[in-house]
Amino acid sequence: MTAESPFRRVSEPARELLEEIRRWPIFDPHSHIDPHRPAARDLDEILGYHYYTELAHSAGMPAADVAPELPPRARVENLARRLATLDNTVQYSWLVEIARTFHGFEGDRIGPEDVPGLYDRALHDRDGAAWDEKVWRTTNLEAVFLTNDFDDPLEGWDVEKYVPCLRTDDLALKLHRPGTVERLKAATGVDVGDLEGLRAAIGALFERFVARGARACAVSLPPDFAPRPAAPKRAVTPIRRALRGLDLRPDEHDEIRATVFWMLAEFCADFGLPFDLMIGPVRDVYPAGVAGGRDLFDRRVSLYEYRALFNHFSGVTFPVSTLAPDAGAELVAYSWIFPNVLPMGHWWYSNVPAFIAADLKARIQAVPKVKLLGYYSDAYKLEFILPKFDMYRRVLAETLAGEAVVKQGWTVERALEVAKLALVDNPRRVFEKPSRAARAAI
Amino acid sequence: MTAESPFRRVSEPARELLEEIRRWPIFDPHSHIDPHRPAARDLDEILGYHYYTELAHSAGMPAADVAPELPPRARVENLARRLATLDNTVQYSWLVEIARTFHGFEGDRIGPEDVPGLYDRALHDRDGAAWDEKVWRTTNLEAVFLTNDFDDPLEGWDVEKYVPCLRTDDLALKLHRPGTVERLKAATGVDVGDLEGLRAAIGALFERFVARGARACAVSLPPDFAPRPAAPKRAVTPIRRALRGLDLRPDEHDEIRATVFWMLAEFCADFGLPFDLMIGPVRDVYPAGVAGGRDLFDRRVSLYEYRALFNHFSGVTFPVSTLAPDAGAELVAYSWIFPNVLPMGHWWYSNVPAFIAADLKARIQAVPKVKLLGYYSDAYKLEFILPKFDMYRRVLAETLAGEAVVKQGWTVERALEVAKLALVDNPRRVFEKPSRAARAAI
Amino acid sequence: MTAESPFRRVSEPARELLEEIRRWPIFDPHSHIDPHRPAARDLDEILGYHYYTELAHSAGMPAADVAPELPPRARVENLARRLATLDNTVQYSWLVEIARTFHGFEGDRIGPEDVPGLYDRALHDRDGAAWDEKVWRTTNLEAVFLTNDFDDPLEGWDVEKYVPCLRTDDLALKLHRPGTVERLKAATGVDVGDLEGLRAAIGALFERFVARGARACAVSLPPDFAPRPAAPKRAVTPIRRALRGLDLRPDEHDEIRATVFWMLAEFCADFGLPFDLMIGPVRDVYPAGVAGGRDLFDRRVSLYEYRALFNHFSGVTFPVSTLAPDAGAELVAYSWIFPNVLPMGHWWYSNVPAFIAADLKARIQAVPKVKLLGYYSDAYKLEFILPKFDMYRRVLAETLAGEAVVKQGWTVERALEVAKLALVDNPRRVFEKPSRAARAAI
Repeated sequence: MTAESPFRRVSEPARELLEEIRRWPIFDPHSHIDPHRPAARDLDEILGYHYYTELAHSAGMPAADVAPELPPRARVENLARRLATLDNTVQYSWLVEIARTFHGFEGDRIGPEDVPGLYDRALHDRDGAAWDEKVWRTTNLEAVFLTNDFDDPLEGWDVEKYVPCLRTDDLALKLHRPGTVERLKAATGVDVGDLEGLRAAIGALFERFVARGARACAVSLPPDFAPRPAAPKRAVTPIRRALRGLDLRPDEHDEIRATVFWMLAEFCADFGLPFDLMIGPVRDVYPAGVAGGRDLFDRRVSLYEYRALFNHFSGVTFPVSTLAPDAGAELVAYSWIFPNVLPMGHWWYSNVPAFIAADLKARIQAVPKVKLLGYYSDAYKLEFILPKFDMYRRVLAETLAGEAVVKQGWTVERALEVAKLALVDNPRRVFEKPSRAARAAI
Repeated sequence: MTAESPFRRVSEPARELLEEIRRWPIFDPHSHIDPHRPAARDLDEILGYHYYTELAHSAGMPAADVAPELPPRARVENLARRLATLDNTVQYSWLVEIARTFHGFEGDRIGPEDVPGLYDRALHDRDGAAWDEKVWRTTNLEAVFLTNDFDDPLEGWDVEKYVPCLRTDDLALKLHRPGTVERLKAATGVDVGDLEGLRAAIGALFERFVARGARACAVSLPPDFAPRPAAPKRAVTPIRRALRGLDLRPDEHDEIRATVFWMLAEFCADFGLPFDLMIGPVRDVYPAGVAGGRDLFDRRVSLYEYRALFNHFSGVTFPVSTLAPDAGAELVAYSWIFPNVLPMGHWWYSNVPAFIAADLKARIQAVPKVKLLGYYSDAYKLEFILPKFDMYRRVLAETLAGEAVVKQGWTVERALEVAKLALVDNPRRVFEKPSRAARAAI
Repeated sequence: MTAESPFRRVSEPARELLEEIRRWPIFDPHSHIDPHRPAARDLDEILGYHYYTELAHSAGMPAADVAPELPPRARVENLARRLATLDNTVQYSWLVEIARTFHGFEGDRIGPEDVPGLYDRALHDRDGAAWDEKVWRTTNLEAVFLTNDFDDPLEGWDVEKYVPCLRTDDLALKLHRPGTVERLKAATGVDVGDLEGLRAAIGALFERFVARGARACAVSLPPDFAPRPAAPKRAVTPIRRALRGLDLRPDEHDEIRATVFWMLAEFCADFGLPFDLMIGPVRDVYPAGVAGGRDLFDRRVSLYEYRALFNHFSGVTFPVSTLAPDAGAELVAYSWIFPNVLPMGHWWYSNVPAFIAADLKARIQAVPKVKLLGYYSDAYKLEFILPKFDMYRRVLAETLAGEAVVKQGWTVERALEVAKLALVDNPRRVFEKPSRAARAAI
């Protein structure tokens, strides 16, 4: 059997489940797709995905081999020479599935000798829009959420398909960095100079994003962050210093990110937006790595630090992703108790079948099915959505077949109800357009 | 196949194991059964179990829908309308198994339309004692341990069947709370005013409990607790202040709980009682939740904090349960090294087949079989003991079949030896009546 | 089916994989073998392995039953009486496999009644060297790495077979202990009195070890250790005080171990030696335990604490083992990003099939295959290498069969490529003799 078949050798109930599950459209609630260039224009945009460059670098490839200043074809050739070192990984299997699905590749493994043919077949610099459309249809995409900078003009694409999502890392974590305040002023027209100005500006951002069809706010938070109720008086001076680009003490940094984060949650409440929390990454742990391959985590995190947030904002839905694979069990418990905490997808270092299977089994056994947010692609190019979702859908089918159909005696139909909620119905419901009621309440 | 069969579709060795295992009586070393009303008198006492109210609340049901002031039938109807949101969970499967086993239900899922019939069939307000007896026999119960407040009069039931167990949370963690001291004085007749009075009173409690057939002492401990040898001199003043209801500083609280906990361990040593440690919960993390559904945990715990206790009290058996599922592997290692540390059951947020299977596999592979304390129900009503034990017995049978019979080439008989120890022989031996020798030594 | 067959009942692809994998020679990159007495001279040297004494003690055997002053046969008899309490453990299965492979035993379980026969058949006090050779050949050993004290004369054996490895715990963690400095002076001839003298002495050790064929440096590090760049000026005084045996403050201890550890890494860089990091143990957590059975761990560790080390020493290969089973997922992520971090084996409390299977699945799915260092025996006697490697090889075959052949549609040959790298090719390449280039650069 070849890698071609998404079914491979699975048990009969798993096969039956997977056949049905693959018929559903894909609703992808988190990605880094560029709506102006959603599909890859060449093979370099596929092989340039940080998973390949970082794994190849980890296996010995100098970072310079994929430097931005090289011609795309040279980067591809350099990387392809390293693929044999990592052809065991699940990330490599996505690549083969892409080549087979989208580029007429027929082999099981991709090596340097395949590059000339593949490069030509994957070149779409002249038929970009048509190619975007072809990949979209082949993937059977219904919607894909973006990750938009706060000053993204949000113009020039269909927001029903490419759904805006306000990414707020720059505001919550990098307010003091040069440029942030200027970008904020430029984006909002507000003369941001103090806490109240900041609030006005962020309110303007939410207004604009929601008006342009945004359906979520998102942020990634480091392991040492613990949300706490804002203490506006204490924050006034640090915020002003940050907005003026002055040096800050560590406790001031801490005050600022706590204050801004809490303010973001308040706006999510006001605007009826879910707030995606992506918990765990530490940036630039390995500074000499390739672009996108420098971040890691400290596994010593706990959702216990988020209790004040979850309690205070009972009206805000928090789809939560955790980065450390061993933190997954705690997320099950918090989703089981807090109505507004929903386990969402399997993120980055946890996005590996071994970890997905373990987490998914527990989520299905202990979290109400109407709260499961199955999967998102986190992709930068459309082509990756299909193989990533297929990986998840296989694990989901195997898990439901083994744990529910075989061990619990469920019918296939009953198992499909759970799968449908996790993959389609729940994401549609949780990430629907903010209701008039919520908007009116502002 | 329906939910009726506890066997469902399992492998042949698993089925053979399970058939035999289900013949054994159930020895349940930890529950919250009320010996005066052990079985449920109506469906509200089944559906009112915090697992259903908290999961339904987590899935969107207002807490008010199951408020204590509502009539029982209204609570049941409110909850039943929500069951479809959580019918994927293992807790729901217990409910169906109860309805099928005890209430003549024949379906696979319970919905609002089933409530009228089920409510009537589950009503036992007039034949309570006979019903208790019927559930006891159907469950094939040998003994079930209670969780008794320290001032429980311990009278009015058969202590061979409903075995008293001294729960000490109020003493160790809530000595300063209004009422604790008064209850202690009332229960012991000791005029508790200082550390020595406290010791005398607690000694009196142990005397009374052991005289009335108690076979264990138990306590649940928060993640930030670290037992340490008592420093009586340092504790004298804080203890006196607590006993008088005065305000306490955090370090005084800490001194008090360390001192009282150590004292409890000393009495366990004196009286030959096992001391059940249930490690991890934080109370009231989600105060707006339903009753029983407000506690969670911080996963950053380690048994390393318990080293002084395990070393000092080498004569006390510590059956240990940990709450954070990811802490299970550490418990395996501590049980492997410390003679007096025994892994006990699968508790609360860890009591889910996915976590049980992972923990059990490791315990069976690395902890001497004479130390395995397989399972306890933690139940509030007798009806739950059977489906919970059946869940565990299925996982046990599958684990032994897969890991031992298939992979290690064991005979079914050899696998059954391990199962018998874990489920019956070890609990009987560890929780036998305190020996005369131990008593004489006081 | 009996324990005789290493294949037992496995799936067809697993059997096919295992048959081939078992034909390869064993390259064992970490052990505690004594090259002067590699195989056991009697049954006491088998049953005296700390796994048996600690598990038997944990199950109730007094430590005195295996005291060093007892005659070997008495120790064996005392221990054999306890074996029935732990015959479920995987460690026990190694024992049966040894008895069957090396001592003509034919049963499935070993009890007191087997001791007389087994003791006689396992006695090799008169044919030691021939026996060493026989065990070596039966095991199909290619090389086994030792753990040599820094003052080991490294003479009297074939270093191609028994490869020296410099164990540096005494230097990094116990410099202040009586004897360390004297041993260092005696081993190097350097009059170690200050930081510079210490550097000269350690340099001399590396010179001698590499000249005598050492191919790795190794150290085990406690959970509270965090490597950091040496601050020589700050370390000068504490190092001098330690070398003179004066009392040290905690911060001085910390400074010393950080400084010496960093120095060791510098020498690994200079000499082109891989630096095995074995992260996690706390020594003497249970002081009343049997020899070798007193250490445990605190699970709250993170590789995040090692970022400065991994970044600074980009030219040093760090094969990493972690002790807490729940830390395994983090090691996958760090190995996926840092080129110089390689996941190595499954250590001690993590060396149990349940934990190996979970870790291995993730490593195979997410770490480039050229970085996998499959397994090491950690054995004290040659006889243990075969059953331990067989345990691992079974899990490896099952994992590759289930996850890759069945679920991913790989051919058996493709799965064998990964297995061969993990077990043979990668260890050979990573632990090759230090290159001339590296040596010349000193």
